[in-house]
Amino acid sequence: MSADPAPPPVIVLVRPQLGENIGKAARAMLNFGLTEMRLVTPRDGWPNPSAGPAASGADIVLEQAQVFDSVADAVADCAQVYATTVRKRGVTKPVVTPERAATDIHAARGRSAILFGPERSGLETDDVALARTIITVPINAEFGSLNLAQAVILVAYEWSKGTVLASPPETELPDPAPHEELEGMILQLDAMLEAAHFFYPPDRTPVTKRTLRTLLTKPGWSSQEVRTFRGVLSALAGAKKAKPPPQS
Amino acid sequence: MSADPAPPPVIVLVRPQLGENIGKAARAMLNFGLTEMRLVTPRDGWPNPSAGPAASGADIVLEQAQVFDSVADAVADCAQVYATTVRKRGVTKPVVTPERAATDIHAARGRSAILFGPERSGLETDDVALARTIITVPINAEFGSLNLAQAVILVAYEWSKGTVLASPPETELPDPAPHEELEGMILQLDAMLEAAHFFYPPDRTPVTKRTLRTLLTKPGWSSQEVRTFRGVLSALAGAKKAKPPPQS
Repeated sequence: MSADPAPPPVIVLVRPQLGENIGKAARAMLNFGLTEMRLVTPRDGWPNPSAGPAASGADIVLEQAQVFDSVADAVADCAQVYATTVRKRGVTKPVVTPERAATDIHAARGRSAILFGPERSGLETDDVALARTIITVPINAEFGSLNLAQAVILVAYEWSKGTVLASPPETELPDPAPHEELEGMILQLDAMLEAAHFFYPPDRTPVTKRTLRTLLTKPGWSSQEVRTFRGVLSALAGAKKAKPPPQS
Repeated sequence: MSADPAPPPVIVLVRPQLGENIGKAARAMLNFGLTEMRLVTPRDGWPNPSAGPAASGADIVLEQAQVFDSVADAVADCAQVYATTVRKRGVTKPVVTPERAATDIHAARGRSAILFGPERSGLETDDVALARTIITVPINAEFGSLNLAQAVILVAYEWSKGTVLASPPETELPDPAPHEELEGMILQLDAMLEAAHFFYPPDRTPVTKRTLRTLLTKPGWSSQEVRTFRGVLSALAGAKKAKPPPQS
């Protein structure tokens, strides 16, 4: 699923409180291709019946989730440990954005783990001490209110940008029409406007024609769209020639 | 709040169903500095008593939300209209990622609007037809399950990256100690290890010392950390000199 040598990061929920939030975190993860969840002493035990419905189908993440007694055990096999926290703490570790962390995780040798704290209180200082790097989501200083699943989704989303899975969507945009088709359309309109005495006074004609040409070149219409527009012009030309409908 | 000339985008919820989701969308917006929400014919009317609790304090967004009868009315004053949708449709418009859209919105002349469809069905083809550009979040092809608030938060988050508000967090990392302090520490350890006959055989000594120097240079310790480590060394040196505690 990933294009780089480093395996996808492990998401570690440290002492999560509500099963519903564990389910939402699983859903957030799977949306962006992360499947490995680890739980450190979930408050209400595990499995938790509230998790499944909240996962909206991301059951595989919950089924494979592993439970650990300590953060140290949960990250024992990980070479890089990140702690997500919003609060400034008295720890002297590098603080990075989710974007920067994602780049580093893809480039890392070995597996990375990302710690997320309990819903209400966040990670403890002792949890953060196990991490080499802190991830902080830059947020509105006057209203920072990210819940657990939202923090997980932002980190997972940034990670997914570096994967094959999340390559930019196909635009499916048809090619712009070749120039001669555009030219034919412009000449058709020109002829119609000449006939309608649109170009007046004569010394303004070149400027006006250039304006129209710019206007019609701008959309980058496809061949189909050029044909449609020429059909519109023909219909308008026909309407002018046709007799008005009989009045009742 | 924004560093660029373009005003922050308007978030347009088209025919939203649940008040709770409107509240969650408001919370998602305000986290990343977006405040202008517009509602097109919300199913259960407006105001909706379920919205407030779900907004978790983002009341200002709900209080200022405006209600419109049609999408066209809701975006009447916007120069750029984006439609968020996951499904491929038979419309020939450019499809961009939230990241790309955010860059374009910051660079745009005039205000942008971003349309989000109803929870269950998403935007109708007629809604999409009003937009110039489609935003699609690249997602796990086997599990795409983004809810309304999650789609809003990803788009708002990407937009916030281009704002002053979301400048990278202060790292608060102390400067690495000046070289002379590092050198003093290394010499102290060297002297201790010499005394302990650590460097053996003699012809390996330069390599071993270089290895230790590399190891101690790598962390980039601050002056405080160098002092702490020297304290550790002094304590170890003192322990060796001190007599062992009396055996009971």
